[in-house]
Amino acid sequence: MKAEIIFIGTELLLGQILNSNAVFLGQELASLGIDCHFQTIVGDNKERVQLAVQTATQRADLIITTGGLGPTSDDLTHESLSELFAEELKLDQKVLEHIKEMFKKRNREMADSNAKQAYRPASADLLFNPIGTAPGIIWDISKKCKTTDTKLILTFPGVPSEMKAMWKEIAKPFLIEKLEPKQVLVYKELKIYGLGESSLAERVQDLLDLQDPTIAPLAGRAECRLRLATKAETKEIGFEKLKTIEDEIFKRVGEFIYGFDDETLESVVANKLKKQNLTLALAESCTGGLLSQRLTELAGSSAYTKTNIITYSNESKTKMLQVEPNILEQFGAVSEEVALQMAEGVQKLAQTDLGLAITGIAGPDGGSIQKPIGLVYIAISYKNLKQAQKFDFGQATRSDIRWLASQSALNWLRKII
Amino acid sequence: MKAEIIFIGTELLLGQILNSNAVFLGQELASLGIDCHFQTIVGDNKERVQLAVQTATQRADLIITTGGLGPTSDDLTHESLSELFAEELKLDQKVLEHIKEMFKKRNREMADSNAKQAYRPASADLLFNPIGTAPGIIWDISKKCKTTDTKLILTFPGVPSEMKAMWKEIAKPFLIEKLEPKQVLVYKELKIYGLGESSLAERVQDLLDLQDPTIAPLAGRAECRLRLATKAETKEIGFEKLKTIEDEIFKRVGEFIYGFDDETLESVVANKLKKQNLTLALAESCTGGLLSQRLTELAGSSAYTKTNIITYSNESKTKMLQVEPNILEQFGAVSEEVALQMAEGVQKLAQTDLGLAITGIAGPDGGSIQKPIGLVYIAISYKNLKQAQKFDFGQATRSDIRWLASQSALNWLRKII
Repeated sequence: MKAEIIFIGTELLLGQILNSNAVFLGQELASLGIDCHFQTIVGDNKERVQLAVQTATQRADLIITTGGLGPTSDDLTHESLSELFAEELKLDQKVLEHIKEMFKKRNREMADSNAKQAYRPASADLLFNPIGTAPGIIWDISKKCKTTDTKLILTFPGVPSEMKAMWKEIAKPFLIEKLEPKQVLVYKELKIYGLGESSLAERVQDLLDLQDPTIAPLAGRAECRLRLATKAETKEIGFEKLKTIEDEIFKRVGEFIYGFDDETLESVVANKLKKQNLTLALAESCTGGLLSQRLTELAGSSAYTKTNIITYSNESKTKMLQVEPNILEQFGAVSEEVALQMAEGVQKLAQTDLGLAITGIAGPDGGSIQKPIGLVYIAISYKNLKQAQKFDFGQATRSDIRWLASQSALNWLRKII
Repeated sequence: MKAEIIFIGTELLLGQILNSNAVFLGQELASLGIDCHFQTIVGDNKERVQLAVQTATQRADLIITTGGLGPTSDDLTHESLSELFAEELKLDQKVLEHIKEMFKKRNREMADSNAKQAYRPASADLLFNPIGTAPGIIWDISKKCKTTDTKLILTFPGVPSEMKAMWKEIAKPFLIEKLEPKQVLVYKELKIYGLGESSLAERVQDLLDLQDPTIAPLAGRAECRLRLATKAETKEIGFEKLKTIEDEIFKRVGEFIYGFDDETLESVVANKLKKQNLTLALAESCTGGLLSQRLTELAGSSAYTKTNIITYSNESKTKMLQVEPNILEQFGAVSEEVALQMAEGVQKLAQTDLGLAITGIAGPDGGSIQKPIGLVYIAISYKNLKQAQKFDFGQATRSDIRWLASQSALNWLRKII
């Protein structure tokens, strides 16, 4: 089965809201093994909605719309469909009662315009809305399209909570019933740090041409990922199919793979710290709290966090972390020597197992020929390891330099613990 | 001018990422007064990209694509266009040098596949990418489409930071130049904190119906904004038109307006601090460095930042900030008393003009009936002001509670300095 989604709403075209329905429906269709080759976003305009639907009927079996089911005059999904497929709208008395009931429960008067929501094309079935006043339809339009193949239209409101409830309770079970080959789509993402998208692609070039499983490299913010996907009768068989190719990828670029699927560099580090009962103290200069923020955004971060310090001024570095003033003067705040003393200083101060420090030049000012913008030192003090590493984040923006520094720090951490 | 946007990327169809580019481009086109009636999302597939472009050329003058400009074999936007409009791809030696240069600066080897990014259809102009290795094109295809009307294709990478930089620096000025009616669109956004979108809309309901200037309420992350827009012969005349309505809005909700356009709560606070030569020290518990991160993301933050501390554990609060152990025991870490002592403690320690502390329960664990998840105390110590405020961020997620706490702290700061 091939699907196409039409998101109806001028607010989407104007960029006034993020289209989170696209994420939900995209994932849901994929999980059912239903291909979706096109999505269209169109405003609250009858002719353009009709054009989008007509185009979709030519290349898909299942057309899903969201939006345009409200009570106001610019909500016209069902009117558009009714006109396009030349079938009158008919009142469903039961739906009208249900809408009245909902208003009563909320102690509110039903506006006349709400009655409009109880109308639908005469031969369309009701797609019940359990939590709102805007029901959708399930409409078999194969005859209208003069085909014996499946041609279905399902309409949903744009409000995410209502759309999701209708999808889960009614539409999804209905579609599963319809799907003939009972195949599921299984996928796994390998999260990669330290290898650019193109270098990664080169190392697995031959695998990218595989038809099944498919492998796609995707870029992220200073990291990338490989998505392995396949279809199978069951999830177990699917993951088994992915395993062989995953092993091959690990052989080639395993050292750069830090995790899977929803894992992030910070969640991997956090889990390792928790597992080993380790505590970590941070001394941040140029990143200004970014790393601390990332590591405490995760639930349960108090297991490894006690004290982190942002030492932005030189004075703060000497006073808080006991960085020696003559070292600061001789080598400058952005140096291997100062980074090391910061890491040891914060470890001692916070009495943690690990101390990590970041000092660098994030720009846009403050660079020099000897110490250009993008120069960052990261140091770790952990057991016998007392080491600083130099990084050069060249032409990146202030925000990206800070991000890259936090990524590098997390990646180094995950490797040594 | 009518535009159509084609977002290219299988990850969008599969719902693996939110399409934030749609929000940015939707708003930008609207701000230029360019209508956009359709947006299409299509996977990394040559035939389908071509179909989407072909459809768009029939109903729009300006076609914008994002995605598919990377170095890997599934990045095929320019190949698709080249084939569709029957024109060969040609190497741009200068672009190739630039890409090589970027890799060199980052101390990384350029993969052979990256050379691919230096190719574009022979008659297309370069749309330079100032921060990445994937340039786009500006291509006048009116002749290819056998029309004397404007027919333009602009291609952008999918990475939001690169797309935005290219839009702002090159594409937007280029399009403004192209727009025929010598009217300029003038707009101004009023940034609002402390008033929900619907409460805001209620207070300015009558103004929302105005035809010129138009006024649109927009929701943000724990804040909202009103966008006033009008068209006029010159910018000056336009802003003059906006001024009357702006004054009226200020009369009604002025106390909630913290800034304009690109200003953020942190940039407003930062500018106030700098103007008055004030320094600020932060003691963060539940926000874990988020506020410090926000205030140091801005260039020049060393003017007001010396030392900030994340005191996550009770021990850290007493040791670093001199919070009295008996106060901690009697009132608990999340209390007015402890917040106040933290603020005074960090102010003294960092020797700054202001001290600000945040302590709260971000969840998902750690809540109780007396101290539920979402309870946050913020305290400020500044001259004679020594005050703590209680906030209740109820049912929000961990991430949102932290964000709301940082928003509230910044809003309080902007009011007292």
